[in-house]
Amino acid sequence: MSSGNHLYTTYKTISQKAADIYYASAVLGWDQETYMPPKGAEARGRQLATLASQAHELLTSDSYGKLLADLSKMEGLDDTEKNNVRLSAEDYERNKKLSPEFVEELSKQTSECFNAWIAARKQNDYSVFAPSLAKMIALKRKQADLYGFKAHPYDALLDEYEKGATVAMLDPLFEGIKQQLPILLNKIKAVQQVSNDCFHRNYPKQQQWDFSIDVLKRMGFDFEAGRQDYSEHPFTTSFAPDDVRITTRVSEDNFASMLWSCIHEGGHGLYEQGLPAEHYGLPLGAAASLGIHESQSRFWENCIGRGMGFWKYFYPQLQQYFPKQLADIKAEDIFKASNRVEPSLIRTEADELTYHFHVMIRYEIEKALIEGSLDPAGIPAKWSELYKHYLGIKPTDDKTGALQDVHWSHGSFGYFPTYTLGSFYAAQFFHQVQKDIMGLQQQIENGEFSAMLNWLREKVHRHGRRYTSEELCAQITGKKLDPEEFFEYARQKYKVVYGIDA
Amino acid sequence: MSSGNHLYTTYKTISQKAADIYYASAVLGWDQETYMPPKGAEARGRQLATLASQAHELLTSDSYGKLLADLSKMEGLDDTEKNNVRLSAEDYERNKKLSPEFVEELSKQTSECFNAWIAARKQNDYSVFAPSLAKMIALKRKQADLYGFKAHPYDALLDEYEKGATVAMLDPLFEGIKQQLPILLNKIKAVQQVSNDCFHRNYPKQQQWDFSIDVLKRMGFDFEAGRQDYSEHPFTTSFAPDDVRITTRVSEDNFASMLWSCIHEGGHGLYEQGLPAEHYGLPLGAAASLGIHESQSRFWENCIGRGMGFWKYFYPQLQQYFPKQLADIKAEDIFKASNRVEPSLIRTEADELTYHFHVMIRYEIEKALIEGSLDPAGIPAKWSELYKHYLGIKPTDDKTGALQDVHWSHGSFGYFPTYTLGSFYAAQFFHQVQKDIMGLQQQIENGEFSAMLNWLREKVHRHGRRYTSEELCAQITGKKLDPEEFFEYARQKYKVVYGIDA
Repeated sequence: MSSGNHLYTTYKTISQKAADIYYASAVLGWDQETYMPPKGAEARGRQLATLASQAHELLTSDSYGKLLADLSKMEGLDDTEKNNVRLSAEDYERNKKLSPEFVEELSKQTSECFNAWIAARKQNDYSVFAPSLAKMIALKRKQADLYGFKAHPYDALLDEYEKGATVAMLDPLFEGIKQQLPILLNKIKAVQQVSNDCFHRNYPKQQQWDFSIDVLKRMGFDFEAGRQDYSEHPFTTSFAPDDVRITTRVSEDNFASMLWSCIHEGGHGLYEQGLPAEHYGLPLGAAASLGIHESQSRFWENCIGRGMGFWKYFYPQLQQYFPKQLADIKAEDIFKASNRVEPSLIRTEADELTYHFHVMIRYEIEKALIEGSLDPAGIPAKWSELYKHYLGIKPTDDKTGALQDVHWSHGSFGYFPTYTLGSFYAAQFFHQVQKDIMGLQQQIENGEFSAMLNWLREKVHRHGRRYTSEELCAQITGKKLDPEEFFEYARQKYKVVYGIDA
Repeated sequence: MSSGNHLYTTYKTISQKAADIYYASAVLGWDQETYMPPKGAEARGRQLATLASQAHELLTSDSYGKLLADLSKMEGLDDTEKNNVRLSAEDYERNKKLSPEFVEELSKQTSECFNAWIAARKQNDYSVFAPSLAKMIALKRKQADLYGFKAHPYDALLDEYEKGATVAMLDPLFEGIKQQLPILLNKIKAVQQVSNDCFHRNYPKQQQWDFSIDVLKRMGFDFEAGRQDYSEHPFTTSFAPDDVRITTRVSEDNFASMLWSCIHEGGHGLYEQGLPAEHYGLPLGAAASLGIHESQSRFWENCIGRGMGFWKYFYPQLQQYFPKQLADIKAEDIFKASNRVEPSLIRTEADELTYHFHVMIRYEIEKALIEGSLDPAGIPAKWSELYKHYLGIKPTDDKTGALQDVHWSHGSFGYFPTYTLGSFYAAQFFHQVQKDIMGLQQQIENGEFSAMLNWLREKVHRHGRRYTSEELCAQITGKKLDPEEFFEYARQKYKVVYGIDA
């Protein structure tokens, strides 16, 4: 495969050293959210800032830039090498726009802001978070300016998570959601609600945990190359394809909380485990985009986990863990409960349909914050107003309002839209895989996921960043992202769940 | 306190950046031994190597060297600043002797060797470890040459853990042990053995864990600034005085295993938590030496934990956790069991007396390996020979022989002697604290450890590396390390335990 080029080897060495530092930061970040004692926060913040600046220094050095420039012009690299160089050169141009001081400041502010978010949640008081968040937003606006943009400053930030995503592309997407989803939502509201009582019984923590491990193993998550832990806010991180960490949370009176976070993060985790290890630290060894990452988690969570086939297989096992709690429940009840649609306040526990309003609200707030038309102090009021408008309900306190997500504390502005993109890609991929794999539904009902996982590995995972989300989507499904695929998926699903004529 | 000197600020910034990277490595190391999934080992190895070389690069740069040279000559630094600069300059000279390539090679070999050790232990087969260990020893011999030495190559390695320690100083110390301890040992052998059956009943894991947390809290370990986890081989590591990690292991049929490791690591942990946070990343914020570190763990483990006073307080609590197991046991039985002397194969579970033979055997083997008079292939045979000679017993397999300790896999040659030094310092400090604190014995019996902890903080912890072990010892006890203090401590203890005329 390798052209044995000396310059390429040097490029690879530097890139992988930077990746080592980046992955080391990921270990520190994982520990920060799983095991770190509270007083450890301050030192952790400075350690993460130093690592960020060390990696940034390597990746923005003039010698690295020259190497990439030389390699970009060079003949004789093979296809894989060319793609790595092309993508690294793009990253270099982007990274160069941020000074080392800015990178360090941003990293420090991220730790400070995350700790403020933790404290604010503990006290259920947005004002504890507000000053730190305002500083973060100022930094992100500055970052957008440093990156530069054509149409909208938010585009500059979006690009970091989803190359090519812009306000001009997302506005119509959310417009479509505003048009289509209320139609379905109103039809659902008009019929008898399905019950989700079965989730709200007493489910002891340890048995929930054991069931989650069973599910993850069945999905194909390799516990020799990863683990699951607890954290306040479930997430997936990776230190190499052979060391992927997912987290979950457990609520003893809401089984659904652990269930969906486990399958969701499991989907992310499978993607990370499926990235080609031979490209460790290089673009072809990294995920295509956050939207594609989310397509993997949503695929497993929504298309598979919330499907009747999944429960045909898993329900008997669940009953063994909870014979008393589930004595009066059938697999179909779990399936319906899994797909109950109901406007709610918490994004991560929302149903598949209203979920997109949660995302849209955040998208609108972020856009306004970054363009400067909304003052950070006005977030809670705006939040309430938008929830009232789109979902007909208002937060009862800060924890069910603007304090619910970790993202802003991480400085992740432009991240939320990838959730909707991911769900839409997932629906489109799911439609395709059913055409590509004969008898898939039967396999799912038998708990056989390996053919499907291989399909995901083959179509998505193994390519790393070689293709953009759009290219990948076109390659897999023969067309670009088509929101109608999601709408149709939803109509079909709710027809079964609610018996509506969708 | 600060002279506000600009050069000093630059020095501090660079030193603390290097410390950030060093502490980040410590997080990766902690994870490696506590939670990392097995397949994560390879990537972890390269990540640690990169961090090691990044820190080394910062600390050996010409600009850092010039800064230290300028500061060393400068007037107007305050006492604290002068001490930091003096010690950093010493470190710089030492670090400069190793090339970046050597540091990276050593770090990679450390990860490889650690993984080989894990694998070898699993298979109980020294030969699985041998090739990797041989490479490690070759590197350590090279390292000794690079550092340089006057009398013996082993001195160069000892110096890394215990400044000033040499073969010329340790040979007489161990000679004293060879003279004195057998006298006591023979007297003990001549009388009725005390029973330690009380440790070998069925003690469920969770209750052992809960008791260990109670003990650590009572000792003064701050769980807001640290935590305890499980690992194969108990250890203490620190990412800042506010984030100190200790580990333990639990054996359900040997309560003593968890008990001593918890108190021992707790003693290390208290030292780390007591280091002055204002000197984060600077010499005055680091531990004085491994010998002094070990003096803290041994102080708590042996002088306190194996004392009758400790059990007067803790035994009623232990009984609440294990009422059935301890129905026929008195506090005094636990005290005696805690001090049962009996030649055994496992160093970490040895009694206070024979422990020093375990150390001496490793010392003799290391000395021979580093001077080249013993081939690595000959370790198991030499091990058996020395155990037979000093303790009258031989390992039954590799796990109870040369595979029992993690140290060599970490490349820690020269580390073991600090265990004996630590025990001896501990006895000497314990003698002193009893003179310094009125009514200490009564406080211990009441489970009141704060005055004693404050004494340790005041006399030892707060100084960081300001004084060498020898200076610290002289300052605290009015004289240098005096082995007779340990021998006398031991005579007094075993007089009570065995009723011998010692």
